[in-house]
Amino acid sequence: MSPAATPENAPEHCPGTESEQAGMASACDGCPNQNICATAPKGPDPDLPLINDRMGTVKNKILVLSGKGGVGKSSFTTQLSFALSHADEDTQVGVMDVDICGPSIPKMFGLDGEQIHSSNSGWSPVYVTDNLGVMSIGFILQDADDAIIWRGPKKNGLIKQFLKDVDWGDLDYLVIDTPPGTSDEHLSVVQYLKETGITGAILITTPQEVALQDVRKEIDFCRKVKIPIIGVVENMAGFVCPGCKGESVIFAPTTGGARKMAEDTNVRFLGSIPLDPRIGKSCDQGLSFLEEYPDSPATKAYIDIIAEIKKILPQ
Amino acid sequence: MSPAATPENAPEHCPGTESEQAGMASACDGCPNQNICATAPKGPDPDLPLINDRMGTVKNKILVLSGKGGVGKSSFTTQLSFALSHADEDTQVGVMDVDICGPSIPKMFGLDGEQIHSSNSGWSPVYVTDNLGVMSIGFILQDADDAIIWRGPKKNGLIKQFLKDVDWGDLDYLVIDTPPGTSDEHLSVVQYLKETGITGAILITTPQEVALQDVRKEIDFCRKVKIPIIGVVENMAGFVCPGCKGESVIFAPTTGGARKMAEDTNVRFLGSIPLDPRIGKSCDQGLSFLEEYPDSPATKAYIDIIAEIKKILPQ
Repeated sequence: MSPAATPENAPEHCPGTESEQAGMASACDGCPNQNICATAPKGPDPDLPLINDRMGTVKNKILVLSGKGGVGKSSFTTQLSFALSHADEDTQVGVMDVDICGPSIPKMFGLDGEQIHSSNSGWSPVYVTDNLGVMSIGFILQDADDAIIWRGPKKNGLIKQFLKDVDWGDLDYLVIDTPPGTSDEHLSVVQYLKETGITGAILITTPQEVALQDVRKEIDFCRKVKIPIIGVVENMAGFVCPGCKGESVIFAPTTGGARKMAEDTNVRFLGSIPLDPRIGKSCDQGLSFLEEYPDSPATKAYIDIIAEIKKILPQ
Repeated sequence: MSPAATPENAPEHCPGTESEQAGMASACDGCPNQNICATAPKGPDPDLPLINDRMGTVKNKILVLSGKGGVGKSSFTTQLSFALSHADEDTQVGVMDVDICGPSIPKMFGLDGEQIHSSNSGWSPVYVTDNLGVMSIGFILQDADDAIIWRGPKKNGLIKQFLKDVDWGDLDYLVIDTPPGTSDEHLSVVQYLKETGITGAILITTPQEVALQDVRKEIDFCRKVKIPIIGVVENMAGFVCPGCKGESVIFAPTTGGARKMAEDTNVRFLGSIPLDPRIGKSCDQGLSFLEEYPDSPATKAYIDIIAEIKKILPQ
């Protein structure tokens, strides 16, 4: 018989679930030899005070999460950040893209081809407007089509640099866009922001059950690593045919959709955004959908959801 | 000034891009102390011969990849596998789900709540029909809503077990469904199948530019790790309103769509599958869309694409 038939002994190379789940993981996680290793971190991470300094001037740190990919995390991050920064020119907004292997944030802000500059005070974000700065691995690549073939520790190293070396300045909001899942990127953000804290997470889903089952995992993740959940947004919820104005359900809520899931899991439901193909088009073109199409029902949904989020966040 | 301002020195903790890109990464990758470490792998991986034994009886090993999430990798994997196995009861098909943090394969095959059994010959896949077996972390979880909070090395350990300890038997096709990106899961599959080889990869995308830019990265990945590319499938390509039969473009091909991208990158274009909400519904319910809705234009597109794939694969 095969020696391993349970999940408990499956991860042969990694001893530390407990510490990981508490958000204590380090870049050496997965190495079984940390106790006998000369350079494995023995004490507190010396970079943490530097991260705490940078993050001490950020009022709200918001994680945008989903379980499943392609539900609109990056679109939501983009439109939320456009809206927060455009509402008031004195509101400073930063966007940090920790989707290392598939960074779509630069394109969505119309920043393709931009590069990072560094100065005495660190890496400078790329600015969309004076009060909206963005940081992504997309700004570092030689060629936009290059694959970023990085295992976890390398991704974690870059995320640490985004928090430690970027001159974010005084921010009202830092919106952190994550890849799908509950793995290295998510654990690293939690670990590095342990001392300054994460204000909360916004969970994005689509109405169908295969997306909802992954969001339930994300809720479990937030609870285990103690991130407050701001609420759930249902994206791509219905499609109004531009021909006949009839509404079609593209991603069918076979199990009641996000509202019911939110009720069942005792999480705030922030609202439902209908599927408007012009959202995707705006994102491809780096534009604010809310400003381009103020009359769309999706714009109204966005505005209501953002107002709700602002009410919840500490001012 | 910050000491690190280029991508080259960003990954402080991980020395080995070169070996990673050649698919040579190990579970200790990311640990800077492999040379001084007692248990770091010094020679060839002792598990490789065991994997080679298991995989020696698998005729075609097919990776289903995408750059972006939510473009329909798992749906395509499911419908392809249903179709291959239903076409001929003597065709043996296996499905391996390496999306560790967001396993949707069990639900899509109607196998929610099933568990893995083990015997003298190893873990047994969960069978949909006599000639269609499935393996996923979803079958190991205590509770479907539990988050799988694993960093890379642990995910790699489970993927190794799926290849080494599962009694796949003689298979005509092993279809491997991956998470989005080009990171641990992808490198591990490539590394573990180095000696027995991967027949080829099918790349899934949607028509809009933010998806295409990630597929270009995936093409770069395949070329760097030397996986033959079977071709590109464009998913969710157009939506026919059930009310007025007018076609709407949900994910707009602002840069020419997948066909043009395939031409530009010199990759075979396998075809375009229109968006039919009943595909998602079939996947939520664990049903074969092609059998449930034989008259859908999407079914015709699927059948043509699968015929094309079968022509390309060695018989």
